[in-house]
Amino acid sequence: MKFVDFKVGMKDQTRKTITEADVVLFSAVSTDINPLHLSEEAAKNGIFKKRVAHGILVSGLISAVLGNKLPGPGTVYLGQELRFVAPVYIGDDICAEAEIIEIRPEKRIIKLQTTCTNQRGEKVITGVATVMFKD
Amino acid sequence: MKFVDFKVGMKDQTRKTITEADVVLFSAVSTDINPLHLSEEAAKNGIFKKRVAHGILVSGLISAVLGNKLPGPGTVYLGQELRFVAPVYIGDDICAEAEIIEIRPEKRIIKLQTTCTNQRGEKVITGVATVMFKD
Amino acid sequence: MKFVDFKVGMKDQTRKTITEADVVLFSAVSTDINPLHLSEEAAKNGIFKKRVAHGILVSGLISAVLGNKLPGPGTVYLGQELRFVAPVYIGDDICAEAEIIEIRPEKRIIKLQTTCTNQRGEKVITGVATVMFKD
Amino acid sequence: MKFVDFKVGMKDQTRKTITEADVVLFSAVSTDINPLHLSEEAAKNGIFKKRVAHGILVSGLISAVLGNKLPGPGTVYLGQELRFVAPVYIGDDICAEAEIIEIRPEKRIIKLQTTCTNQRGEKVITGVATVMFKD
Repeated sequence: MKFVDFKVGMKDQTRKTITEADVVLFSAVSTDINPLHLSEEAAKNGIFKKRVAHGILVSGLISAVLGNKLPGPGTVYLGQELRFVAPVYIGDDICAEAEIIEIRPEKRIIKLQTTCTNQRGEKVITGVATVMFKD
Repeated sequence: MKFVDFKVGMKDQTRKTITEADVVLFSAVSTDINPLHLSEEAAKNGIFKKRVAHGILVSGLISAVLGNKLPGPGTVYLGQELRFVAPVYIGDDICAEAEIIEIRPEKRIIKLQTTCTNQRGEKVITGVATVMFKD
Repeated sequence: MKFVDFKVGMKDQTRKTITEADVVLFSAVSTDINPLHLSEEAAKNGIFKKRVAHGILVSGLISAVLGNKLPGPGTVYLGQELRFVAPVYIGDDICAEAEIIEIRPEKRIIKLQTTCTNQRGEKVITGVATVMFKD
Repeated sequence: MKFVDFKVGMKDQTRKTITEADVVLFSAVSTDINPLHLSEEAAKNGIFKKRVAHGILVSGLISAVLGNKLPGPGTVYLGQELRFVAPVYIGDDICAEAEIIEIRPEKRIIKLQTTCTNQRGEKVITGVATVMFKD
């Protein structure tokens, strides 16, 4: 796609099951070893009662939609607002969707509504991404 | 720490070298397989000229400071604003710092300025985190 | 903490669920590919009847308590005695605890009783760690 | 091999380069995120001046010799004494050797001298393993 081809309202998505392996690997990449994510026993005493995925781990799916699909290769990530509105448990299957909500041709900037939804249709992350697109 | 012990101005930090292994593992966890991150040849033709780490990968260090140190265990992540202000190359050593800027006792909410800085002292990510703290 | 702040009797702990991913990753890191850890069929014919985690893998949690918490950053690991007293199965949730049992100020050495316990309260690893602490 | 075939003086070994990926993965498996291992900048201010591998990570090679080679499949790990006598840096190539020093037929127990040596011939870990062997 060329920059001129993008229109407000275009959307695309990707899906992934969040596995125990993902949580273990993300703990290494991030050094976030909060037992809320890594210990079933510790999580029982927390507010979610079982292990939850790191919010930023799940946000990685947004990065994937932007970089792989819409706008796709050529995307330079400038910013992201994230609201973690519901927990993501190990085994949840997350759909990350991005929809273009604003285009600023003079700076080649695109803003997208970004939403992650679980297999029960509940929103788990909402927010807005800002990217620059080079073609 | 108890909620009542937190004060505006408190800060803490963590450090990590961003390795090639981190970039590979994060691409698996996130499904963000943009060649900008994974192919040295593809990256040569992009705006950064060599492979850069995923912005959300580096943001994981912010999650680590919040979850491990300040506020630490008991933190529930509600939101994060991120501005990716400079690229992070493989081998860069990133310091993520969080500083309390606002406390709302009635809802047990804490806001923190979150800043990632590379080994040359350049800011690479700026933004604000919003967390709830349960003790 | 400063060296002078440590006292005999101080203790701290960490928890983690030992996942299938941990066993796979540790087999890669260590090259210990014993089918007892990696093959459910092979394990059926062994003395534990199902896959068990590597003893040294679980001992890594002791390293985590020492390096992250007590004595924490500044710890130099000099030695560890380990007794693997019960098997750890995939999915077990292990609490690793370290308690200071001896302090030798002239060499800045601290000895700690180190104990790993599963979610049923059974000890799985016992032993003693010897560290030097630099502040 | 059968238990009766083992003799005092038998030895075997294995080798592995300790990579940056190993250190990242072991930090996940163990939750030991000490910056001494993970941040080149933090390590500069520590006693080793650059990132060192976790001692327990390197000890995994001993587990590999015991489980894969001598005594090999059928080994049940009962105990291990470890002395971390020199640092292991990322990129070091470690030879782990086990030599039988004692056999107790009545309990089917074998004791082995276990030694890890780097590519410059310097011992980095010494100690003794105790195993039971089932054939």
